[in-house]
Amino acid sequence: MTTTAPAPLPLAAPADGGCCAPALTQAVEPEVAQGLARSFKALADPARVQLLAIVATQPGAEACVCDLTEPVGLSQPTVSHHLKILVEAGLLEREQRGRWAYFSLAPGALAGLVASLSAATQVSA
Amino acid sequence: MTTTAPAPLPLAAPADGGCCAPALTQAVEPEVAQGLARSFKALADPARVQLLAIVATQPGAEACVCDLTEPVGLSQPTVSHHLKILVEAGLLEREQRGRWAYFSLAPGALAGLVASLSAATQVSA
Repeated sequence: MTTTAPAPLPLAAPADGGCCAPALTQAVEPEVAQGLARSFKALADPARVQLLAIVATQPGAEACVCDLTEPVGLSQPTVSHHLKILVEAGLLEREQRGRWAYFSLAPGALAGLVASLSAATQVSA
Repeated sequence: MTTTAPAPLPLAAPADGGCCAPALTQAVEPEVAQGLARSFKALADPARVQLLAIVATQPGAEACVCDLTEPVGLSQPTVSHHLKILVEAGLLEREQRGRWAYFSLAPGALAGLVASLSAATQVSA
Protein backbone atom coordinates (compact mmCIF):
# COMPACT_ATOMS: atom_id res chain seq x y z
CA MET A 1 0.00 0.00 0.00
CA THR A 2 1.39 3.37 -0.95
CA THR A 3 0.49 6.24 1.34
CA THR A 4 0.75 9.89 0.56
CA ALA A 5 2.76 11.70 3.18
CA PRO A 6 0.64 14.40 4.78
CA ALA A 7 1.90 17.97 4.70
CA PRO A 8 3.96 18.98 7.75
CA LEU A 9 1.73 20.03 10.60
CA PRO A 10 1.99 23.61 11.83
CA LEU A 11 3.48 23.73 15.30
CA ALA A 12 2.04 26.61 17.27
CA ALA A 13 3.37 28.06 20.50
CA PRO A 14 0.83 27.91 23.32
CA ALA A 15 -1.19 31.05 23.96
CA ASP A 16 -0.21 33.24 26.89
CA GLY A 17 -1.39 31.58 30.04
CA GLY A 18 -1.01 28.11 28.50
CA CYS A 19 -0.82 25.42 31.13
CA CYS A 20 2.76 24.41 31.25
CA ALA A 21 5.42 23.66 28.69
CA PRO A 22 6.48 25.02 25.33
CA ALA A 23 4.89 23.39 22.30
CA LEU A 24 6.19 19.92 21.58
CA THR A 25 7.35 18.80 18.18
CA GLN A 26 6.61 15.61 16.37
CA ALA A 27 8.95 12.87 17.57
CA VAL A 28 8.47 10.78 14.42
CA GLU A 29 7.58 11.86 10.92
CA PRO A 30 3.96 11.10 9.97
CA GLU A 31 4.99 8.71 7.20
CA VAL A 32 7.30 6.84 9.60
CA ALA A 33 4.47 6.58 12.14
CA GLN A 34 2.26 5.23 9.36
CA GLY A 35 4.75 2.51 8.48
CA LEU A 36 5.28 1.53 12.10
CA ALA A 37 1.53 1.40 12.75
CA ARG A 38 1.15 -0.88 9.73
CA SER A 39 3.74 -3.30 11.11
CA PHE A 40 2.19 -3.20 14.57
CA LYS A 41 -1.25 -3.86 13.09
CA ALA A 42 0.10 -7.02 11.47
CA LEU A 43 1.35 -8.09 14.90
CA ALA A 44 -1.93 -7.22 16.67
CA ASP A 45 -3.08 -10.85 16.72
CA PRO A 46 -1.78 -13.60 19.04
CA ALA A 47 -1.63 -16.17 16.23
CA ARG A 48 0.50 -13.87 14.10
CA VAL A 49 2.81 -13.15 17.02
CA GLN A 50 3.22 -16.90 17.50
CA LEU A 51 3.78 -17.56 13.79
CA LEU A 52 6.40 -14.84 13.51
CA ALA A 53 8.17 -16.10 16.63
CA ILE A 54 8.16 -19.68 15.35
CA VAL A 55 9.60 -18.66 11.97
CA ALA A 56 12.18 -16.43 13.67
CA THR A 57 13.45 -19.22 15.91
CA GLN A 58 13.95 -21.79 13.13
CA PRO A 59 17.40 -22.48 11.64
CA GLY A 60 17.83 -19.89 8.93
CA ALA A 61 14.70 -18.13 10.24
CA GLU A 62 12.62 -20.11 7.77
CA ALA A 63 9.73 -22.55 8.09
CA CYS A 64 7.48 -24.58 5.81
CA VAL A 65 3.79 -23.74 6.04
CA CYS A 66 3.19 -27.45 6.53
CA ASP A 67 4.93 -27.22 9.91
CA LEU A 68 3.19 -24.10 11.14
CA THR A 69 -0.38 -25.32 11.65
CA GLU A 70 0.29 -27.73 14.53
CA PRO A 71 2.07 -25.35 16.91
CA VAL A 72 -0.65 -22.68 16.70
CA GLY A 73 -3.54 -25.15 16.67
CA LEU A 74 -5.32 -23.52 13.72
CA SER A 75 -6.43 -24.81 10.33
CA GLN A 76 -4.10 -24.43 7.37
CA PRO A 77 -6.36 -21.87 5.62
CA THR A 78 -6.42 -19.75 8.77
CA VAL A 79 -2.66 -20.04 9.16
CA SER A 80 -2.20 -19.11 5.49
CA HIS A 81 -4.41 -16.06 6.01
CA HIS A 82 -2.30 -14.89 8.95
CA LEU A 83 0.93 -15.54 7.06
CA LYS A 84 -0.36 -13.51 4.11
CA ILE A 85 -0.95 -10.53 6.42
CA LEU A 86 2.60 -10.84 7.78
CA VAL A 87 3.97 -10.98 4.22
CA GLU A 88 1.91 -7.97 3.11
CA ALA A 89 3.23 -6.00 6.09
CA GLY A 90 6.78 -6.80 5.00
CA LEU A 91 7.61 -8.85 8.09
CA LEU A 92 7.83 -12.24 6.35
CA GLU A 93 8.84 -13.32 2.86
CA ARG A 94 7.19 -16.21 1.01
CA GLU A 95 8.83 -18.63 -1.40
CA GLN A 96 7.02 -21.45 -3.18
CA ARG A 97 9.03 -24.70 -3.49
CA GLY A 98 7.06 -27.37 -5.27
CA ARG A 99 3.97 -28.16 -3.25
CA TRP A 100 4.89 -26.13 -0.19
CA ALA A 101 5.33 -22.48 0.64
CA TYR A 102 8.24 -21.50 2.85
CA PHE A 103 8.20 -18.41 5.01
CA SER A 104 11.26 -16.53 6.24
CA LEU A 105 11.89 -13.39 8.22
CA ALA A 106 12.14 -10.37 5.94
CA PRO A 107 15.70 -9.07 6.45
CA GLY A 108 15.78 -5.99 8.62
CA ALA A 109 12.04 -5.73 9.20
CA LEU A 110 11.97 -6.82 12.84
CA ALA A 111 15.29 -5.10 13.48
CA GLY A 112 13.74 -1.86 12.22
CA LEU A 113 10.86 -2.20 14.66
CA VAL A 114 13.27 -2.96 17.49
CA ALA A 115 15.36 0.11 16.61
CA SER A 116 12.27 2.33 16.60
CA LEU A 117 11.07 1.10 19.97
CA SER A 118 14.58 1.11 21.43
CA ALA A 119 15.04 4.74 20.41
CA ALA A 120 11.94 5.65 22.38
CA THR A 121 12.96 3.74 25.47
CA GLN A 122 16.56 4.95 25.45
CA VAL A 123 15.60 8.61 25.21
CA SER A 124 13.32 8.20 28.18
CA ALA A 125 15.70 6.21 30.37
CA MET B 1 -8.95 -7.30 30.23
CA THR B 2 -8.21 -10.62 31.79
CA THR B 3 -7.76 -13.48 29.40
CA THR B 4 -7.90 -17.14 30.23
CA ALA B 5 -4.79 -18.91 29.05
CA PRO B 6 -5.72 -21.65 26.63
CA ALA B 7 -4.67 -25.18 27.47
CA PRO B 8 -1.28 -26.18 26.03
CA LEU B 9 -1.61 -27.29 22.46
CA PRO B 10 -0.70 -30.88 21.59
CA LEU B 11 2.38 -31.00 19.41
CA ALA B 12 2.21 -33.88 17.00
CA ALA B 13 5.05 -35.32 14.98
CA PRO B 14 4.39 -35.18 11.23
CA ALA B 15 3.04 -38.35 9.64
CA ASP B 16 5.51 -40.52 7.72
CA GLY B 17 6.17 -38.89 4.41
CA GLY B 18 5.65 -35.40 5.87
CA CYS B 19 7.17 -32.76 3.69
CA CYS B 20 10.27 -31.73 5.45
CA ALA B 21 11.19 -30.95 9.01
CA PRO B 22 10.34 -32.28 12.46
CA ALA B 23 7.36 -30.68 14.16
CA LEU B 24 8.04 -27.20 15.44
CA THR B 25 7.20 -26.10 18.92
CA GLN B 26 5.61 -22.91 20.07
CA ALA B 27 8.21 -20.16 20.30
CA VAL B 28 6.14 -18.09 22.72
CA GLU B 29 3.52 -19.17 25.23
CA PRO B 30 -0.06 -18.43 24.13
CA GLU B 31 -0.66 -16.02 27.02
CA VAL B 32 2.57 -14.16 26.19
CA ALA B 33 1.52 -13.90 22.55
CA GLN B 34 -1.82 -12.56 23.72
CA GLY B 35 -0.18 -9.83 25.80
CA LEU B 36 2.18 -8.85 23.00
CA ALA B 37 -0.67 -8.73 20.47
CA ARG B 38 -2.59 -6.46 22.82
CA SER B 39 0.33 -4.04 23.01
CA PHE B 40 0.86 -4.14 19.25
CA LYS B 41 -2.86 -3.48 18.70
CA ALA B 42 -2.57 -0.31 20.79
CA LEU B 43 0.30 0.77 18.53
CA ALA B 44 -1.55 -0.11 15.31
CA ASP B 45 -2.50 3.50 14.64
CA PRO B 46 -0.19 6.26 13.35
CA ALA B 47 -1.57 8.85 15.81
CA ARG B 48 -0.88 6.54 18.75
CA VAL B 49 2.64 5.82 17.51
CA GLN B 50 3.24 9.58 17.30
CA LEU B 51 1.74 10.25 20.74
CA LEU B 52 3.82 7.52 22.38
CA ALA B 53 6.97 8.79 20.67
CA ILE B 54 6.28 12.37 21.74
CA VAL B 55 5.72 11.37 25.37
CA ALA B 56 8.80 9.13 25.30
CA THR B 57 11.05 11.93 24.07
CA GLN B 58 10.01 14.49 26.69
CA PRO B 59 12.15 15.20 29.78
CA GLY B 60 11.07 12.60 32.32
CA ALA B 61 9.12 10.83 29.54
CA GLU B 62 6.05 12.81 30.54
CA ALA B 63 3.74 15.25 28.75
CA CYS B 64 0.61 17.26 29.48
CA VAL B 65 -2.39 16.39 27.33
CA CYS B 66 -2.63 20.11 26.58
CA ASP B 67 0.64 19.90 24.65
CA LEU B 68 -0.18 16.77 22.68
CA THR B 69 -2.93 17.98 20.37
CA GLU B 70 -0.85 20.40 18.27
CA PRO B 71 1.92 18.01 17.18
CA VAL B 72 -0.49 15.36 15.92
CA GLY B 73 -2.98 17.83 14.44
CA LEU B 74 -6.04 16.18 15.99
CA SER B 75 -8.79 17.46 18.28
CA GLN B 76 -8.35 17.07 22.02
CA PRO B 77 -11.21 14.51 22.32
CA THR B 78 -9.57 12.39 19.62
CA VAL B 79 -6.16 12.68 21.27
CA SER B 80 -7.73 11.77 24.63
CA HIS B 81 -9.32 8.69 23.03
CA HIS B 82 -5.96 7.54 21.64
CA LEU B 83 -4.22 8.21 24.96
CA LYS B 84 -6.88 6.16 26.77
CA ILE B 85 -6.14 3.19 24.51
CA LEU B 86 -2.41 3.51 25.24
CA VAL B 87 -3.13 3.65 28.98
CA GLU B 88 -5.46 0.62 28.83
CA ALA B 89 -2.75 -1.32 27.00
CA GLY B 90 -0.31 -0.52 29.81
CA LEU B 91 2.01 1.53 27.62
CA LEU B 92 1.27 4.91 29.21
CA GLU B 93 0.26 6.01 32.70
CA ARG B 94 -2.12 8.89 33.41
CA GLU B 95 -2.02 11.33 36.30
CA GLN B 96 -4.50 14.14 36.86
CA ARG B 97 -2.98 17.38 38.18
CA GLY B 98 -5.62 20.03 38.64
CA ARG B 99 -7.15 20.82 35.29
CA TRP B 100 -4.75 18.78 33.18
CA ALA B 101 -3.94 15.15 32.71
CA TYR B 102 -0.28 14.18 32.37
CA PHE B 103 0.85 11.08 30.54
CA SER B 104 4.08 9.23 31.13
CA LEU B 105 5.69 6.08 29.77
CA ALA B 106 4.71 3.05 31.85
CA PRO B 107 8.00 1.77 33.30
CA GLY B 108 9.23 -1.32 31.51
CA ALA B 109 6.35 -1.58 29.05
CA LEU B 110 8.21 -0.48 25.93
CA ALA B 111 11.38 -2.19 27.15
CA GLY B 112 9.41 -5.44 27.39
CA LEU B 113 8.24 -5.10 23.80
CA VAL B 114 11.79 -4.33 22.66
CA ALA B 115 13.10 -7.39 24.52
CA SER B 116 10.49 -9.63 22.89
CA LEU B 117 11.26 -8.40 19.39
CA SER B 118 15.01 -8.39 20.02
CA ALA B 119 14.87 -12.01 21.12
CA ALA B 120 13.27 -12.93 17.82
CA THR B 121 15.78 -11.00 15.73
CA GLN B 122 18.83 -12.20 17.63
CA VAL B 123 17.89 -15.84 17.34
CA SER B 124 17.53 -15.41 13.61
CA ALA B 125 20.70 -13.39 13.05
